[in-house]
Amino acid sequence: MKLPSSYSDLVADLRALGLLKSCQHLLGWDEQTYMPPQGAELRADQLALLAGLAHQKATHPRIGELLAQLADAAPLGGPESTPAALVRETQREYDRATKLPQLLVEELSRTATLSQQAWIAARKAKSFPQFLPWLEKIIHLKQQEADAVGYTEHRYDALVDEYEPGSTTAQLTATLTPLRKELVPLVAAIAESRVKPDGSILTRRYPIDSQREFGRRAAQAIGFSFESGRLDEAAHPFCQGLGPGDCRLTTRYDEQHFPGAFFGTLHEAGHGMYEQGLPAEHFGTPLGATISLGIHESQSRMWENLVGRSRSFWQHFYPAAQQSFPEALGGVSLDEFYKAVNEVRPSWIRVEADEVTYNLHILLRFEMEQGLIAGDIKPADVPGAWNEKFQSYFGMTPPNDALGCIQDIHWSAGLVGYFATYTLGNMYGAQFFAQARKDLGDLDAMFAKGEFAPLLDWLRKNIHSRGQHLQASKLVETITGQPLSHKPLMTHLKNKFGAIYGV
Amino acid sequence: MKLPSSYSDLVADLRALGLLKSCQHLLGWDEQTYMPPQGAELRADQLALLAGLAHQKATHPRIGELLAQLADAAPLGGPESTPAALVRETQREYDRATKLPQLLVEELSRTATLSQQAWIAARKAKSFPQFLPWLEKIIHLKQQEADAVGYTEHRYDALVDEYEPGSTTAQLTATLTPLRKELVPLVAAIAESRVKPDGSILTRRYPIDSQREFGRRAAQAIGFSFESGRLDEAAHPFCQGLGPGDCRLTTRYDEQHFPGAFFGTLHEAGHGMYEQGLPAEHFGTPLGATISLGIHESQSRMWENLVGRSRSFWQHFYPAAQQSFPEALGGVSLDEFYKAVNEVRPSWIRVEADEVTYNLHILLRFEMEQGLIAGDIKPADVPGAWNEKFQSYFGMTPPNDALGCIQDIHWSAGLVGYFATYTLGNMYGAQFFAQARKDLGDLDAMFAKGEFAPLLDWLRKNIHSRGQHLQASKLVETITGQPLSHKPLMTHLKNKFGAIYGV
Repeated sequence: MKLPSSYSDLVADLRALGLLKSCQHLLGWDEQTYMPPQGAELRADQLALLAGLAHQKATHPRIGELLAQLADAAPLGGPESTPAALVRETQREYDRATKLPQLLVEELSRTATLSQQAWIAARKAKSFPQFLPWLEKIIHLKQQEADAVGYTEHRYDALVDEYEPGSTTAQLTATLTPLRKELVPLVAAIAESRVKPDGSILTRRYPIDSQREFGRRAAQAIGFSFESGRLDEAAHPFCQGLGPGDCRLTTRYDEQHFPGAFFGTLHEAGHGMYEQGLPAEHFGTPLGATISLGIHESQSRMWENLVGRSRSFWQHFYPAAQQSFPEALGGVSLDEFYKAVNEVRPSWIRVEADEVTYNLHILLRFEMEQGLIAGDIKPADVPGAWNEKFQSYFGMTPPNDALGCIQDIHWSAGLVGYFATYTLGNMYGAQFFAQARKDLGDLDAMFAKGEFAPLLDWLRKNIHSRGQHLQASKLVETITGQPLSHKPLMTHLKNKFGAIYGV
Repeated sequence: MKLPSSYSDLVADLRALGLLKSCQHLLGWDEQTYMPPQGAELRADQLALLAGLAHQKATHPRIGELLAQLADAAPLGGPESTPAALVRETQREYDRATKLPQLLVEELSRTATLSQQAWIAARKAKSFPQFLPWLEKIIHLKQQEADAVGYTEHRYDALVDEYEPGSTTAQLTATLTPLRKELVPLVAAIAESRVKPDGSILTRRYPIDSQREFGRRAAQAIGFSFESGRLDEAAHPFCQGLGPGDCRLTTRYDEQHFPGAFFGTLHEAGHGMYEQGLPAEHFGTPLGATISLGIHESQSRMWENLVGRSRSFWQHFYPAAQQSFPEALGGVSLDEFYKAVNEVRPSWIRVEADEVTYNLHILLRFEMEQGLIAGDIKPADVPGAWNEKFQSYFGMTPPNDALGCIQDIHWSAGLVGYFATYTLGNMYGAQFFAQARKDLGDLDAMFAKGEFAPLLDWLRKNIHSRGQHLQASKLVETITGQPLSHKPLMTHLKNKFGAIYGV
């Protein structure tokens, strides 16, 4: 079928925009990894220039004109065709970008930069009041953003949609509420169990060179390509895909804490393998892009938790781990180690939470954000509301706001509507994983033999290679035959932690 | 004095262009240091896009209009003023840039990126035929570039002028010929001397970690700031200044060869200190830029050779070197070591050549390039022509092309017309150094005490801080009261090597 020339014109424009953004991404990666201290001011100027050029390209009227010419899906092969998906997603992004007044974009960007500085100081001082004026500004601006973008039911929908296209507050609530209802009693039962894994095994001395080597080997073994990627160190671990053939992971090492770097590496490698599995020929267009933050997180959390914290994974890797860390693990059995890396223990800090309690941290934030954007919770009331919820979910109250409502960078950076995607990722991941098990057979037997390619191939075929052809909700239905549900995640958690804790 | 508003408009445009170029430079640095192998194609596309955008900005008619408005130097403070220098140099670059078609610029950029990857592989495989198709493309494109720029006498002039503004093939030949006439008998006399320094001292085992540490310490001691810069590893060592606060050096280590990495580091640090000494407030404009490659090289070669291979330098550093490399240097006297690092011996590799024969390597390349661009030498005939010339200059023939015509990255990167600036740098450097000695007194006494700041301050004040206020020929006359001459270099070489070799 011959596609209209406006289609190839659009693809060419998107590709140039993608290249420009990938330059921004490399500069951002370098900023976090190798930039010398005095280079920060120049870097800010470079990034501002590239962001301006990218915004100009993304909102250029020519893209609107090409999209208008392509509004009829028939010459593209019908509404379900790949070209129609490209047009649909491009239209969505273009609409969103052009609805935002330039002044609001600039004000948000400026406020986010200053607000992050204020947040760093406030967290250090354990002082919510110090951050309050900035939170008020951010929430006010995000409300304006939601109004500019538009919504049907909840203002919050307009913000959620940026990170998880197609999702709404109502849908998220319908999925997350039953999850909470089942999670809270599970957490309570585990807390009462007599089984107490010895997590202190993991805070012995783990020489950093050996951690680096072992983590790299594991990332490679599960399928991350070092021919098309790297693993470096950064203060805040992340994965940055630049485009075909180049994906950068970072982690951070602590000699006294094995899980941080190791599971962080598996997590980022999970993100990285998604990036490496995108179809290179569609780079720059929605067909060569990841679907949503939730789907992205489904990949990272799957490799980190469903694979990396499984008994079968360690059946394969534990002998090597003992060889790499003879001092720490020489006298530790596989079973003790497996239980240690799966210790469930309520904690103040989200990023240090285990597989079970993690989602409660997210639910709390999801509810707080809705209240803030709807105006039902005033920014000044955040600490009280936070601590009350925390008490009811975890049975304990944060001793200060640095361990409570100002622990995360997200709000200060203007990322409101983002948190839910972490738990969506856990749910998508569990649902995909259950389906992969059905399709592929005994995954555990494969992992125990160090065979990870069948799972990765399955993800490549069913998810990665599709780009944004399907939106997230459609994807999960297409692959698993069911809409997104909390059940596969709860089944996984109940089975796994039931066995560990005897509950 | 109040400058016209068109002047500040021009400065703003140049600054934005400078930022865009500095993004290109970071991508180029990353390509040589950390980019994964499969990232080459994406990088080529990214760099081509940025090169295209930079070319658009550099050749935008608005710059031409602003320059026309600023053609009268009187409101700028007269023709000798700093603003007039900015306008003069901008006009020169604008004239050159507007002569190059956009398509040629992008094609050159893309070809250079891919060609460098091919060169790396070809050098590794010691296979010129593997590199030949790329060399043919590059030469063809550089011929087109020369034709687009235009020239009066030699096509090659148009290329030389990019790196050494104001220079021509004829002038270079006129400067290099007397140098060769004095150099050849000196090389011959040294070859016949009974003094034979024991260079094998330098090919003992020098553990790479210690080399890295020692080289870094020396670079810092002579004045390179690691707060505003880095030192990494790359196949072909280089210095890339990105802008204020960020300058990247690279070197390469060989456990069996001390001088390669160490003097390479001093060399690149010399470049880096020039970059770090540029006036930050003029970033992006000619007043914040280095003058020419010859002047750039005068800095690197000065720190590498006139400082780093001096007896006084090693009076200070040798005890530390013996501590760092006890196995290799424990039983070696300062005098033996000093002679070893100054051994004159014809070698295959330019970057490893001694101070005396180095310039013969340059003359060979200078002649090859003229032939290639004029069309008198076909790319396919390069190995034969190279080996023939090498035999006549050095009395030996390279055993393979990795030690011959594909040893340098330059051609693969599209850098044709560049090599002569290395020897110009040696001449400028010697002339500046002789003047610094006059102005500052006993430099050797300072070096022996580890005091390098007086020389660096002198260079900052006389050269670095001036940006492009003066062109190279004017600068050398202003500082030394004399036009560029081969005499200070020959005086230095005759004195130093006369003493070592008793000739």
